[in-house]
Amino acid sequence: MPRPIVTLTTDFGLSDHFVGVMKGVILRICPNAELVDVTHEISPFAIMEAAFVLAETYRWFPKKTVHLAVVDPGVGLSRRPIIAEAAGQYFVAPDNGTLSLVFAREGRKVRAVTAERHFLKPVSGTFHGRDVFAPTAAHLAKGAPPARFGKLIDDYNQKEFGKPSRTGKRTWSGCILKIDRFGNVITNFHIAEFPVVQTRPFVMNVGQRAVSALARTFGERSFGEVFLVVGSSGYLEAASNQASAAQLAGVVSGAPVELTIY
Amino acid sequence: MPRPIVTLTTDFGLSDHFVGVMKGVILRICPNAELVDVTHEISPFAIMEAAFVLAETYRWFPKKTVHLAVVDPGVGLSRRPIIAEAAGQYFVAPDNGTLSLVFAREGRKVRAVTAERHFLKPVSGTFHGRDVFAPTAAHLAKGAPPARFGKLIDDYNQKEFGKPSRTGKRTWSGCILKIDRFGNVITNFHIAEFPVVQTRPFVMNVGQRAVSALARTFGERSFGEVFLVVGSSGYLEAASNQASAAQLAGVVSGAPVELTIY
Amino acid sequence: MPRPIVTLTTDFGLSDHFVGVMKGVILRICPNAELVDVTHEISPFAIMEAAFVLAETYRWFPKKTVHLAVVDPGVGLSRRPIIAEAAGQYFVAPDNGTLSLVFAREGRKVRAVTAERHFLKPVSGTFHGRDVFAPTAAHLAKGAPPARFGKLIDDYNQKEFGKPSRTGKRTWSGCILKIDRFGNVITNFHIAEFPVVQTRPFVMNVGQRAVSALARTFGERSFGEVFLVVGSSGYLEAASNQASAAQLAGVVSGAPVELTIY
Repeated sequence: MPRPIVTLTTDFGLSDHFVGVMKGVILRICPNAELVDVTHEISPFAIMEAAFVLAETYRWFPKKTVHLAVVDPGVGLSRRPIIAEAAGQYFVAPDNGTLSLVFAREGRKVRAVTAERHFLKPVSGTFHGRDVFAPTAAHLAKGAPPARFGKLIDDYNQKEFGKPSRTGKRTWSGCILKIDRFGNVITNFHIAEFPVVQTRPFVMNVGQRAVSALARTFGERSFGEVFLVVGSSGYLEAASNQASAAQLAGVVSGAPVELTIY
Repeated sequence: MPRPIVTLTTDFGLSDHFVGVMKGVILRICPNAELVDVTHEISPFAIMEAAFVLAETYRWFPKKTVHLAVVDPGVGLSRRPIIAEAAGQYFVAPDNGTLSLVFAREGRKVRAVTAERHFLKPVSGTFHGRDVFAPTAAHLAKGAPPARFGKLIDDYNQKEFGKPSRTGKRTWSGCILKIDRFGNVITNFHIAEFPVVQTRPFVMNVGQRAVSALARTFGERSFGEVFLVVGSSGYLEAASNQASAAQLAGVVSGAPVELTIY
Repeated sequence: MPRPIVTLTTDFGLSDHFVGVMKGVILRICPNAELVDVTHEISPFAIMEAAFVLAETYRWFPKKTVHLAVVDPGVGLSRRPIIAEAAGQYFVAPDNGTLSLVFAREGRKVRAVTAERHFLKPVSGTFHGRDVFAPTAAHLAKGAPPARFGKLIDDYNQKEFGKPSRTGKRTWSGCILKIDRFGNVITNFHIAEFPVVQTRPFVMNVGQRAVSALARTFGERSFGEVFLVVGSSGYLEAASNQASAAQLAGVVSGAPVELTIY
């Protein structure tokens, strides 16, 4: 029988004890859990980055995987922990928008986690990853049904950063979801909604660069050029052959981008 | 039956082959070991950081977990490898103070590892993590009794960095155990020994900041302010709401801090 | 029965979803795989670094381990995926030289992966790690025989960076394979081929330093000195006691080094 999988996505970094502690808590509750790090290098408090990484990851995992995501600028304040069921998988996160891009794609059931019997007591003021989120994920992985944690809700937090807005007849305004390790600039323009870039002339303004070419792969373009590719996620990415498009364009995560179709 | 757990805490970083090699060595000896990275980003040779991380981590793991910690400025010199049994768990480390903060909290039995039959031969001059510590941890995880590795000792290395010293009627001098990923400044003042900060006026001098407020959570304070919180570890931490207190105060790991109670 | 092991070596970094996605793909195909990160911090597109890390790692793992290595400047271009069998283990990588240092040491059988039935469809233009390499490694780990993936080839890519070249009667020219986390400068001079440094005077020019001492361990030399050690890999490394030899000498990965024997 396969082991239950728990993935971890946080902004805790890898230099402290936080991630190890969460794993210890999970293994004490669910000793045969398979722990898979997605990333712990989300920029501190960057909910949009976490939302993007999570949305790109879940669908590649087996059914019933528990995805634990803790990026939590409001730790200690009143935001609720939630459990979502979507696409045959489980998600455990603070109710702060982290799951917005999953919700944008999938039907879901969302519960506020109110049953405190699973929490580690006393719940600290500063480390809910350990005291609230890790034990919740571990009990889910061990087989506790979601209904045991709390009631269904429909007033959960959902942010709109997954979608550019129309600003004129031929223009749209969007933003940069994330800069990846290679300097690729991942925008929130999805090819499914903007297939027109494949057939019509366009300009996407990304920082100091006006990008007007769509390439099929990185290798086919000349060095120093910035062009668009359809990223592995389906989002349009400004990229450059063996160079950082983010550096060439001078942009950071969260910055605006403008698309004009001719 | 749950798999035996081996946690790893080192200053090896994540960009080299060192950690992968140690894991290979462990899995060859104990194929069903569950390997859990605590951190490999301890600052090079920073024994105090490793001691802190280890002391914050072990108690959250199941009984019988083997905690392997290799931060070893003296590799190739005469310091001994040791095995400690404490709190129902095992610790494998060089005898250089790495386990000081565990020892400060727990009764323990400590052995010098002298039986070289478990080592990989020839033992290299530069990589005892691979040749000495990983095989020792793996054989422990596989069930070899500690007595098989060497005799009990009581002259092991124990450092005093877990404790501030009194410098006047109302003043104490301590130090910074670690700066965490969020810039929180973890001091060696523990709330169990200084509960007085909850009831009396105080000033803690941390670099350029004179900190005089104790907050329950991060979220309740204004931006730019530096305040104390009781960290998840029980130590007093200088913190700031969504900002790096370490940067605001201008301090690094190891620096002194002064507490005055009024 | 031990679980099949899949190790991962990439230049994907740890801040994106790439590694998590590859792990999900592997676990969906081979749910009981044991996933071991070697490193994801290979410098972007640095095939030589990957070749070195892989060659230092494989021999410490159990037989039948599948080593998956993806450093792939040519993603989307025509280089082939390959499977190699060597030293009782499996290697999956692009045919771009990543396996050169394994091949320099071991007899091997190499196959071009042409059977596309195992790939995820449609194969993207930008993420062959997910669509090609991860599923190939997972099916191997699950027990599919290598012959099922494609035919034996002998025109695979093999680079010569594992070996210095003779430039005079007493002089050799080599290069820096990698700088490790501690600033040790790993050259491509192997002690097995240059045992002469143990018995004869020599000078190795490493950046701004002329290194003429061979030490047995780090701890025995004075601070600030740069000396050679026989690294845990058998390669000569320029090192310094608790300091970065790379910084002291002012060198980076890939730079040339010159050895003169007197």
